[in-house]
Amino acid sequence: MITLAVDCMGGDAGIRVTLPACKKFLDSHPDAHLLMVGQAEALQSFRHERATIVPASEVVTMDDPVEVALRKKKDSSMRVAISQVKTGAALAAVSAGNTGALMAIARYVLKTMEGIDRPAIATQLPHAKGGATTVLDLGANVDCTAEHLLQFAVMGSALVSALENTENPTVGLLNIGEEAIKGSEVIKRAGELLRTAGQSGYLNFYGNVEGNDIFKGTVDIVTCDGFVGNVALKASEGVASMISNGLKQEFKRNLLTKIAAVIAYPVLARLMKRVDHRRYNGAALLGLRGLVFKSHGSADAVAYEHALRRAYDAARNDLLGRVQTKIQTAAPLLMSADSTAAAKTVTSPT
Amino acid sequence: MITLAVDCMGGDAGIRVTLPACKKFLDSHPDAHLLMVGQAEALQSFRHERATIVPASEVVTMDDPVEVALRKKKDSSMRVAISQVKTGAALAAVSAGNTGALMAIARYVLKTMEGIDRPAIATQLPHAKGGATTVLDLGANVDCTAEHLLQFAVMGSALVSALENTENPTVGLLNIGEEAIKGSEVIKRAGELLRTAGQSGYLNFYGNVEGNDIFKGTVDIVTCDGFVGNVALKASEGVASMISNGLKQEFKRNLLTKIAAVIAYPVLARLMKRVDHRRYNGAALLGLRGLVFKSHGSADAVAYEHALRRAYDAARNDLLGRVQTKIQTAAPLLMSADSTAAAKTVTSPT
Repeated sequence: MITLAVDCMGGDAGIRVTLPACKKFLDSHPDAHLLMVGQAEALQSFRHERATIVPASEVVTMDDPVEVALRKKKDSSMRVAISQVKTGAALAAVSAGNTGALMAIARYVLKTMEGIDRPAIATQLPHAKGGATTVLDLGANVDCTAEHLLQFAVMGSALVSALENTENPTVGLLNIGEEAIKGSEVIKRAGELLRTAGQSGYLNFYGNVEGNDIFKGTVDIVTCDGFVGNVALKASEGVASMISNGLKQEFKRNLLTKIAAVIAYPVLARLMKRVDHRRYNGAALLGLRGLVFKSHGSADAVAYEHALRRAYDAARNDLLGRVQTKIQTAAPLLMSADSTAAAKTVTSPT
Repeated sequence: MITLAVDCMGGDAGIRVTLPACKKFLDSHPDAHLLMVGQAEALQSFRHERATIVPASEVVTMDDPVEVALRKKKDSSMRVAISQVKTGAALAAVSAGNTGALMAIARYVLKTMEGIDRPAIATQLPHAKGGATTVLDLGANVDCTAEHLLQFAVMGSALVSALENTENPTVGLLNIGEEAIKGSEVIKRAGELLRTAGQSGYLNFYGNVEGNDIFKGTVDIVTCDGFVGNVALKASEGVASMISNGLKQEFKRNLLTKIAAVIAYPVLARLMKRVDHRRYNGAALLGLRGLVFKSHGSADAVAYEHALRRAYDAARNDLLGRVQTKIQTAAPLLMSADSTAAAKTVTSPT
C-alpha cells in the first residue's frame, strides 16, 4: 500500500479540483491510500474506502507571506500534510498551495538531507522529441554557487532515474553558449565541478546547453539557478500562450476561418496534447528528508491527478532512497565542494 | 542623406543575403546611401547609384574567437564597417557577424559612452498585443550590478522613444515575482535604483515583471542581465520552434491532415506573420559612441533588410543623441550609483 498525504485545501480552486482528482486517482490505483488533509466540513462529503480524512483547521492562502504560513498557521492543511510524511504516516505529500510557503514549511518540518545545502524544485518541460526535460532549480534558490548547481545535477539524476526509467540520464549546464569558456564565474566553475563529477562516474555530464535545448530534448536534466530557471519557465509559458491565444483569435476571425478551425481541430488537438503542460504537472521538492510534490496552483483535476501520480511513482520507486544513495556516492566530490565553499566564505565575507 | 556602413561579408550566408537585402533597402529608401564593406571581388557585381564599395580584405567568421577578430583581423569587413562610423563617414554600421567579435570591435573602435560602464545588446520580441517588447541585455554582460541594470533601463528608454515613437516608455525589471521583496540582492537593489529613477522622472518604471510578461506586452522595455536575457530569448525561440515544427509534423501525418493544412494555411500564415521574428531583426548595441546594429547570423534577406531599416530609423531619429541626453539627464543618479559601486569595490574587493 502506498500512502500519500494530500493538502486538499491548497491551490487556486481548492477542493473543487483536489477532491475529483483524488477520486479519479484512487479509482485507478488500487494499492494507493490517501490521507485527505483539510477542514473537516470541506471534506465531509468525500467518501472512499482507501481515503482517510485528516482534519486541519487552517489554510495557507496563495498570497500568505512565508512567515505567516510558517509561524502563524501551525494547523494549516499544508503543514499537516507534510507532517504526515515526517511521522511516516505517508510516503509523500502533495500540495497545490503557495510555493514559497510549501518550500519553507517542508524545510522546517522535514529538514534538509545530509550533503545538500539547499533543496531545489524540479519540474518537467515537454520537448520536441515527445518526452520531457527535467529542469531544476525553478525558483527556490535565487543566488546559487557552483556547488549548488552540482547538487541539483545529482538530485535531478536520481529523480529522472526513479521516475523515467532512464538508467544514466544526461545532465546539461544551462549557459549562454556551448563552449566551456562561456558564462559567469559561477557557471564556469560549475562546469568544472560537473566535468569532474562526470569523469568520476557520479553523473552523466553532457556539457553546456542553451535555453532552446530545454525544448529540443538535448539532455534529460538541465541544471540552473532558480532565478534563471524561473525566468526560462515563465518566458516559455508566455510564448506558448501567445501562440495558442493567437491561433484562437485567428480561427475566430470570420466564417471561413471558423470552418478552417473545425477541419484543423483534430490536428491541432493532437499537437496540443503532445505539449500539454498538464501532463507534466507535479514538481518535486528535492533534497529534503521526505518526498513533497508541488502541483501548479491553477491546475485542473486532470493536472492535479498527474501530480498525484508523480508522487505515487516517486514513493513506489523509492525516490528518497535513490537521492540519498546518489548523494552519498558523490559525497567525496560534494564534500570537497562544501569545504571549498566554506573556505571561500571565511576568506571573503561579502 | 542617411549613410549606413554594411558588413556585407558577415552572417551565415554572407553576400547571398546581404546584397539582395541592400538592393531592396536602397530601392525603398531614396535618401539612403550605403557603404558596402567587404572583399572587392565578392562585391564587384553590386551596382547602385547610392552604394559605394569599401574594400576590406579579411572576414571575421562565425567561430572566430574574439581575440582573433580583434587583434589578428584588423582589415575585416566588420571592423572597417565600424570604422566608417568612427570617422563619421557613416551614421550607423550593420553586421550579421559573430556577436562577441562585433561587440568587442565596436567597443574598441568606438569606445563606451560617458556614464555607461558596459554597452548592452537590445532586441525586440513580439508580444500578444501585436507589438514588441524591447529586452536588454541579451548576452553582452553576464555578471551585472544593480547600476548596470539601471543603465540598461535608461538606454532602452532612449531606444524605444527613438524607434517606436513612444514618448515615455515603461520599464520593467525582470524578476521571479511581482513583489519588491523577490529576487537576488542585485535585483532588489536594482529595483530600488529604478524606483528612485522613476520618482525623479528619469524613466517610467513600472515595477517587477516576470518571464511571461515579455510576451504579454506588459511593459515597453525589460531590463535584465545578459545571462538571464539570453536564456529567456533562447528558451522562447525553443518553444516557438517546437510548436511550429510540431504543427508541420501533425499536418503532414496523412492525406486528411494534409487537406486540413491547405484549408488552415491562410489562418496559420496570418498568425506566423504576427509573430515572425524576422520583423524584429536588428538588435541595437547601446552605450557606444556610435550606432551599431546586429542582425541575426541566420537572417534571410527579408530579416536583414529589417535590420537595415532599424539602423536607418535610429540614425534618422538621432538615437545616439537621445541616449546621450538621457544619460546626461540621469547623470546625478547614475553618478551616485557609480560612486556607490566604486565605494563597494573599495571596501569589499571580491
